Amino acid sequence: MAEHFRDDSTAAIAVRIDAEHPAGMLIDPLQPQLRLTDLGATRGDGVFETMYAVEGLVRKFPAHISRLHRSAEILQIGIPPAESWSAAVELGISEFATRGEVPAHLSVKLVATRGVDGEPASEDPRFSGTYWILLTPVPESSLQRRGTPISVLLLDRGYTSDVHERAPWLVLGAKTLSYAVNMAALRYAEAHGAQDVIFHSSDGQLLEGPTSTVLLMTRTAEGTARLVTPLLESGILPGTTQGAIFAAAGRAGWELGYGPLQREDLFNAEHIWLASSVRLLAPVESVDGHSIAVSSELTAQLAAFLEDDLPVRHPESS
Amino acid sequence: MAEHFRDDSTAAIAVRIDAEHPAGMLIDPLQPQLRLTDLGATRGDGVFETMYAVEGLVRKFPAHISRLHRSAEILQIGIPPAESWSAAVELGISEFATRGEVPAHLSVKLVATRGVDGEPASEDPRFSGTYWILLTPVPESSLQRRGTPISVLLLDRGYTSDVHERAPWLVLGAKTLSYAVNMAALRYAEAHGAQDVIFHSSDGQLLEGPTSTVLLMTRTAEGTARLVTPLLESGILPGTTQGAIFAAAGRAGWELGYGPLQREDLFNAEHIWLASSVRLLAPVESVDGHSIAVSSELTAQLAAFLEDDLPVRHPESS
Repeated sequence: MAEHFRDDSTAAIAVRIDAEHPAGMLIDPLQPQLRLTDLGATRGDGVFETMYAVEGLVRKFPAHISRLHRSAEILQIGIPPAESWSAAVELGISEFATRGEVPAHLSVKLVATRGVDGEPASEDPRFSGTYWILLTPVPESSLQRRGTPISVLLLDRGYTSDVHERAPWLVLGAKTLSYAVNMAALRYAEAHGAQDVIFHSSDGQLLEGPTSTVLLMTRTAEGTARLVTPLLESGILPGTTQGAIFAAAGRAGWELGYGPLQREDLFNAEHIWLASSVRLLAPVESVDGHSIAVSSELTAQLAAFLEDDLPVRHPESS
Repeated sequence: MAEHFRDDSTAAIAVRIDAEHPAGMLIDPLQPQLRLTDLGATRGDGVFETMYAVEGLVRKFPAHISRLHRSAEILQIGIPPAESWSAAVELGISEFATRGEVPAHLSVKLVATRGVDGEPASEDPRFSGTYWILLTPVPESSLQRRGTPISVLLLDRGYTSDVHERAPWLVLGAKTLSYAVNMAALRYAEAHGAQDVIFHSSDGQLLEGPTSTVLLMTRTAEGTARLVTPLLESGILPGTTQGAIFAAAGRAGWELGYGPLQREDLFNAEHIWLASSVRLLAPVESVDGHSIAVSSELTAQLAAFLEDDLPVRHPESS
């Protein structure tokens, strides 16, 4: 994921949201924009979402906004209403049009931090923190890599699968800016010849990737194909891409399942994918060096499910 | 700890370090200084230290710099040499003198992030990231609160005490910017009538506070007083304040001990303190509602140990 800004970062557009600009204000992403005392920068104390916009239309906007608000609620961070984020995204996309052309593929990152320590940005709690959107063209190289099979390592996330129920201070289930462990796990995988990671709990339950949701294709005892994903109750993020695929697959009559899943379920699965909003579906061809079958037909089928329910209007009107 | 910037943040002085300014350059902490794509802000992907300077002299500078470098090594972040940090701190302190007076009590925060995603700040790996120092007068209210007994909650950190040995990607032992869990634990304590937290591992070993090291005073079978702190091997940070106290206490003939410590050891201890660089020693008067004896004499004695080995010169010459 680190490559997302590499090829084309000068073309990014940024929008800030504050109490005076609840519908957003364009800011320059090449200039410094954050104070050194912003708790997002000093404590990883904030939340984010990364959305995907195709031809200027954001995919799964309601699911992302809903998860952003849930993350903010878990962290007790004030957060602008959905209309603000929607209008700000719209402003960013229009600015691309004004400058020439809206890129066909945009990564749209929404960030909310607790703001500057001890200095709320506004008395209105919905605008008390620091909020921005960064719209970045998805590099051609990332688009071309889509669907390329990847090797993953299975790594211990260190937590038991039941800890988040009794330890809300671990803020599991919130997509926070405190991603140092996720980034370190990806570096560890790269250093060991793999491209990505699937975390398991210390009691052996499958969890999620550092920036993705795990999907398995299994067979029932009767031989029926079944799409399965780990249990949310284990403290993982609800995957918006997984959610969209499951909704469409369900409508298409597929059998669906939710964990608990164990490490062995990976090796018994027919196929495995990592699902995320911009990379979409990454078929897994090996886990800890064990080969897993890949099927480009099924990968294409799951990708087609994601086209099943696309927005037809700009997010502001949804 | 959140109050550190509250009373007096406009008086803060900031210094940036980069390849062109390896000895530091003054920057305005009231102006935005960080890009939206800085991985410190978007991924909590950086490391920090908070030091304490009295009358312009930084305490435990070598211990802090050594821990900062160790944290950066665990995260594989390029980091300027000790001389750079030392010169930059010196520059900040001189600037206070130039503006009028060096505050008697300064909090000196050192921060190193991985820098802007995909755009190393320098080809020199020692300056590839983003680096700054923030010097903030310690508010009078914080100084007055020192030594005031506090109530703490004992909270599960979610990890087993042996996980960091087999899971280096959890970056335990590094003081990273990904502090969302630490901050959430402190909010949880405040919401439940306590002022601080002691974490234990999921297998019941005592670990550390979100921003402090735990010290216990116990008695040996023979009745000799003994100062004890949890085991570093459990994946906690090496406490610089605890280290300084132990060194001086050892010279004074005290008996010293290192864990493993269990939850019950807290309740069997004669006294408990949380040690940190700026707050110094916070005597614990209750754990999960159970009273713990406090002794202002012993708190004063431990504080005196911290005076035992003060710097007599500016950090650049140490």
